[in-house]
Amino acid sequence: MLDGPFEKLVKQISGLPGLGSRSARRIVLHLLTQPGNTMHMLAATLEEAAQSVQSCDICGNLDTSDPCRICRDPSRSEEVICVVCNVADLWAIERTGTFKGTYHVLGGVLSALDGIGPNDLSIEPLINRLKTGQTSEVILALSATVDGQSTAHVLADRISDTVPSVKVTRLAHGVPVGGELDYLDDGTISTALKSRAAV
Amino acid sequence: MLDGPFEKLVKQISGLPGLGSRSARRIVLHLLTQPGNTMHMLAATLEEAAQSVQSCDICGNLDTSDPCRICRDPSRSEEVICVVCNVADLWAIERTGTFKGTYHVLGGVLSALDGIGPNDLSIEPLINRLKTGQTSEVILALSATVDGQSTAHVLADRISDTVPSVKVTRLAHGVPVGGELDYLDDGTISTALKSRAAV
Repeated sequence: MLDGPFEKLVKQISGLPGLGSRSARRIVLHLLTQPGNTMHMLAATLEEAAQSVQSCDICGNLDTSDPCRICRDPSRSEEVICVVCNVADLWAIERTGTFKGTYHVLGGVLSALDGIGPNDLSIEPLINRLKTGQTSEVILALSATVDGQSTAHVLADRISDTVPSVKVTRLAHGVPVGGELDYLDDGTISTALKSRAAV
Repeated sequence: MLDGPFEKLVKQISGLPGLGSRSARRIVLHLLTQPGNTMHMLAATLEEAAQSVQSCDICGNLDTSDPCRICRDPSRSEEVICVVCNVADLWAIERTGTFKGTYHVLGGVLSALDGIGPNDLSIEPLINRLKTGQTSEVILALSATVDGQSTAHVLADRISDTVPSVKVTRLAHGVPVGGELDYLDDGTISTALKSRAAV
């Protein structure tokens, strides 16, 4: 039924995360039947974003400028560096608006299965940042998965070996805010019990 | 965290059907972190599709040409016209590859709630097509919803009033292929029972 530019568009959109051919077709139809120039506008915004995206040389964040706005922000210091797996995690923490230090994007986690070793991650640039002596704490904000935690261990060892003055911390484990105990796994409940806090 | 072209892009993508701000953010990140020029290509394809889309003057289908390829196809005749609600439904029927007649896109269904009356739909153009006398059957392929079925009734009445020589049919009701009886509603099961066929 479809051909030429429509089929090409459906194919490209269905390759995006979370979308399949059916949802891509629905999106293309929506765009085609929209009044006005929705499609032109989307094309222009995509082009604009593609042209302006840059990777920050300091932390690895994506922004329209290099260094990124977080590294340039005079109110944020290198005193505390939050290490994240990827830019999505950086944005997730940034959305909370509670962290006022700077970030370091690793670009992934160690994974024997996917053949990702320490040299594939941005570990050396992190150590070099720490060696400048401006940083007193590194928060390892990595996922609580096996790969995330083994990456955190390797990083913690590497940091205490090379820059022992830097304190290494990790995110707290416990009951998610709004979470019901009944639906939580045993590991989370026992960790939350062990790390209980005074009210 | 986001601003300028990225935030604009997330906003535009989150307005697409089936997507929210979280999935839009995920898609934008995916596009930004893709190697090569995925984003440029998507922008170019969007622009190309936007410039080439046309609505068929005969049936209302969307295509890169007017009349659309179905109306132009000499192997498909006006003998049987399949009336559909929108272009998505037309594409769904066309994907089956079993229908060899032509289509007519109504552009919606009658809906008192949404204030859509007979004049908002492409009913008169359909009647005019039927009046040329080339058509012997009209298949009302409308959804089995209340609005879809009331639209089918109105259309059937209108056709038998103006061009009584044309036979009006509708899609069969019954058990979906691959469907389990246990999960079907009572209405479908009783309709399937009533319309039972010899094996």
